[in-house]
Amino acid sequence: MSPVRNVLFIMCDQLRRDFVSCYGGFVHTPNLDRLAGRGVRFDNAFVQSGVCGPSRMSYYTGRYVSSHGATWNNVPLSVAEHTLGDYLSAAGRSATLAGKTHVLPDTAALARLGIEIESERGALLREGGFVSIDRYDGHLPPGPESGYGDFLRAHGYPGADPWSEYVIAAEDGGRVVSGWQMRNAHLPARVQEAHSETAYLTDRALDWIGAQGESPWVLHLSYVKPHWPYLAPAPYHALYRGRDVGPIRHGPQDGTADEHPVVRAYRAHDEALCFAREEVARHVRPAYMGLIAQVDHHVGRVLDALAAQGRMEDTLIVFTSDHGEFAGDRGLGEKELFYDEIVRVPFIVCDPDPGADATRGTTETRLVEGIDVVPTILDALGIPGAPHRIEGRSLVPLVRGEALGAWRDAVFAELDYGFRRARRVLDRGAQDCRAFMVRTADRKYVHWQGFRPQLFDLAADPDEFDDRGADARFEADRARLAERLFDWLATRKRRTTASDADVERHTDTHRRHGIHIGIW
Amino acid sequence: MSPVRNVLFIMCDQLRRDFVSCYGGFVHTPNLDRLAGRGVRFDNAFVQSGVCGPSRMSYYTGRYVSSHGATWNNVPLSVAEHTLGDYLSAAGRSATLAGKTHVLPDTAALARLGIEIESERGALLREGGFVSIDRYDGHLPPGPESGYGDFLRAHGYPGADPWSEYVIAAEDGGRVVSGWQMRNAHLPARVQEAHSETAYLTDRALDWIGAQGESPWVLHLSYVKPHWPYLAPAPYHALYRGRDVGPIRHGPQDGTADEHPVVRAYRAHDEALCFAREEVARHVRPAYMGLIAQVDHHVGRVLDALAAQGRMEDTLIVFTSDHGEFAGDRGLGEKELFYDEIVRVPFIVCDPDPGADATRGTTETRLVEGIDVVPTILDALGIPGAPHRIEGRSLVPLVRGEALGAWRDAVFAELDYGFRRARRVLDRGAQDCRAFMVRTADRKYVHWQGFRPQLFDLAADPDEFDDRGADARFEADRARLAERLFDWLATRKRRTTASDADVERHTDTHRRHGIHIGIW
Repeated sequence: MSPVRNVLFIMCDQLRRDFVSCYGGFVHTPNLDRLAGRGVRFDNAFVQSGVCGPSRMSYYTGRYVSSHGATWNNVPLSVAEHTLGDYLSAAGRSATLAGKTHVLPDTAALARLGIEIESERGALLREGGFVSIDRYDGHLPPGPESGYGDFLRAHGYPGADPWSEYVIAAEDGGRVVSGWQMRNAHLPARVQEAHSETAYLTDRALDWIGAQGESPWVLHLSYVKPHWPYLAPAPYHALYRGRDVGPIRHGPQDGTADEHPVVRAYRAHDEALCFAREEVARHVRPAYMGLIAQVDHHVGRVLDALAAQGRMEDTLIVFTSDHGEFAGDRGLGEKELFYDEIVRVPFIVCDPDPGADATRGTTETRLVEGIDVVPTILDALGIPGAPHRIEGRSLVPLVRGEALGAWRDAVFAELDYGFRRARRVLDRGAQDCRAFMVRTADRKYVHWQGFRPQLFDLAADPDEFDDRGADARFEADRARLAERLFDWLATRKRRTTASDADVERHTDTHRRHGIHIGIW
Repeated sequence: MSPVRNVLFIMCDQLRRDFVSCYGGFVHTPNLDRLAGRGVRFDNAFVQSGVCGPSRMSYYTGRYVSSHGATWNNVPLSVAEHTLGDYLSAAGRSATLAGKTHVLPDTAALARLGIEIESERGALLREGGFVSIDRYDGHLPPGPESGYGDFLRAHGYPGADPWSEYVIAAEDGGRVVSGWQMRNAHLPARVQEAHSETAYLTDRALDWIGAQGESPWVLHLSYVKPHWPYLAPAPYHALYRGRDVGPIRHGPQDGTADEHPVVRAYRAHDEALCFAREEVARHVRPAYMGLIAQVDHHVGRVLDALAAQGRMEDTLIVFTSDHGEFAGDRGLGEKELFYDEIVRVPFIVCDPDPGADATRGTTETRLVEGIDVVPTILDALGIPGAPHRIEGRSLVPLVRGEALGAWRDAVFAELDYGFRRARRVLDRGAQDCRAFMVRTADRKYVHWQGFRPQLFDLAADPDEFDDRGADARFEADRARLAERLFDWLATRKRRTTASDADVERHTDTHRRHGIHIGIW
């Protein structure tokens, strides 16, 4: 009998894997490293899309992006999709949220189905199946679904929009300046660290966990940081100022005419135009790194609190991010596309089950994906999933060193850049901006609708600088990987309204229902 | 201003194209021929699956099977799918039904969403968006959603199940025998023709059309015939008895070891075991043909009634079938797989618009699909569709000889044989029984999950007897068509919760929402 009764699923927003110290990064993250020391550090973990919305919907549904259909940030999650909360509630449990989900409610469907969005059911559907302690998506002033605005006002940050005035604002020579402007990234935020977003969400989570006592729980603690605006509260704003912020990596192709057309189109985005200047990257990185250090500090508070309450003994902890951040590498800023800076994420699983003792502190190199989180949580809690819908695999056998069949040899990610300026640059229609990545241990292949593919030989070129997408010597590689993508596309889980068990039960059974075909 | 105010969408069940006289068939169908003479006869019309449920859900949603997800008969249509009725009701109209839809309600989703299945909304969702005059799916005793049971009892066919006792029963030497047994196909049904299923549904439709007066309407008249049980009422049972029923066509590969493994597995199905005996096919075909002649007669009644009421002047008529029937060809019975006997269907569009005068009586050879029906109806009525969901194209420009861009050069169909005995024969899992067909003017390629593909060179081999799926000389053809399928798989309409207009409206607009990325 596994001791796992609770689950803490911690997500960061835009936390790049190779900035974290246990992943060899420049930011000292002692608490994440401590978590990795107690659990398994996954070295080849990939998200299903390099942008918040679709990546998170994959984390929450256990399904690839073209299966759940929320292809970009502005796309609502269909009411027909089942999330972690659905699977838990079918077992009498629930999924609780503190922080960001980026779930957009499918309001048109709610109206068509006559479901009041303010009803209990409507609230669940609106929130992607999560029961919210505090829903706060960040990067906009907190709305009524979060208590953060009132919290700020109660702690001495007055006004209608204390977030814009204090949290993402700084003072420069007595003048209030905005964190939206990256020139201000070196300044401390006007908010005290204890009242920052990361501290606030941690406090809400700890209050709630403490209030649960011995009742079992599942909490998604979803930080909105180190996502922009790039402005850290003191002392984190100055932690990496003047220190090594890592090399800014440029590929030989950056911005050249033979660079992939979609990558080149992304250079027309504001963040790329700005981050392409190396001094910008060097100016912004310390703030980004400070925000990471701050998250690490608060993860440490959570771990300490769990330990103090005896909860480390019965709580499965999953730590990850929804995608990475270019931070000036390749002359790009922000996210999207399919480079490892973006789609390869930190991913740590700490399982209190004694069966996992042998793997504590180890590194797992097998390929895992964001869609594995839902089946992992369900498996750890002994709750059945839905094999006809969930496309991920439980990581519990990996963590507990149990026998398992052939593991996956490839991971997949998708992008729909229809909402981005790149679409206009390339003059494409709203349906014509899709891309699909397949990545194996030694190759990455990206199919771009209407353009040549990208191919990287990761064995020879781990930095993904030499795009072999048009190189005649790699034709066989491309054909093989395109076939792999074909097989993946052809096996997505579209039959969501009848289970595999339904199929088994009703195979060749028409006679039982009084239908007699083919008898003489 | 188009005169089209009403739409009559007539569907037959299991009506094979090349049995209809205007398609060169052996059954004299003067009324269908008359309809073709007033409209356009489509010679290359294809369904999206060779079996009722998925084919019909494609007809009703305008979407391919793996887009709507109802991959076989036993799979409910997701509540998230929009049907013809949804698009019409958004414009203040409605879609009315007399007959079969094969829609299975998504009861699990209705329960999860708290929608009472007996409510008005629940009824619409349960019926795939149709308002029913009489929902009757055939091949089982009519349930409470049809008045046919009571109609039979009121007309002198007593008992709890007059359908089994009279409609699909015959008398043989004073003994009551069942139409399920194909040995009885030569006998007349015990029901009078005027009380048969085809007559009943026609009467319901005509009563309803008459009652509409000058109010506009959209009616789906959906016959359950000539689908099995193969038993026709007099005089249709004897119409083709002893006459030429066409050649029973055998291919050189039928049942051989090098036949495609899935096709060979279908030979283990009861209907194939029975129809493989040529005497069975010769015995059953006259009943099947009589049932077709009977449908034709009743279509004639409908056309006459429309003409008498002046409705031919303002009614768009679409006539088609959900799939064909092997009727013993290839040693197979029933349907499924991807041969033209099954996926190529009769398809006639009669448009009263004067713009269509030039095409009356003509044959259109361009490729059309079942998914084109919804956009055609909406276009004819001037009602907007939903380009981000609907995958078919309006045929109105073709019928009216209007300029249009490049037309499609391929059609697509799918099969999920998970519920069939073939799955057990081949020892495959519930998720592992998928197939995808791409058919161009001169090639047909079928991708079978886990097996070699099928390829037919239709120019040299219109009968599809020579499977080139493993023929080295056709390797380039296979590669080209596999790539075509890849592109099709990669461009399905998965983003159903945000429209293309939403994408246009929100492209590169984050600044408008107060989000300032990448500014210095």
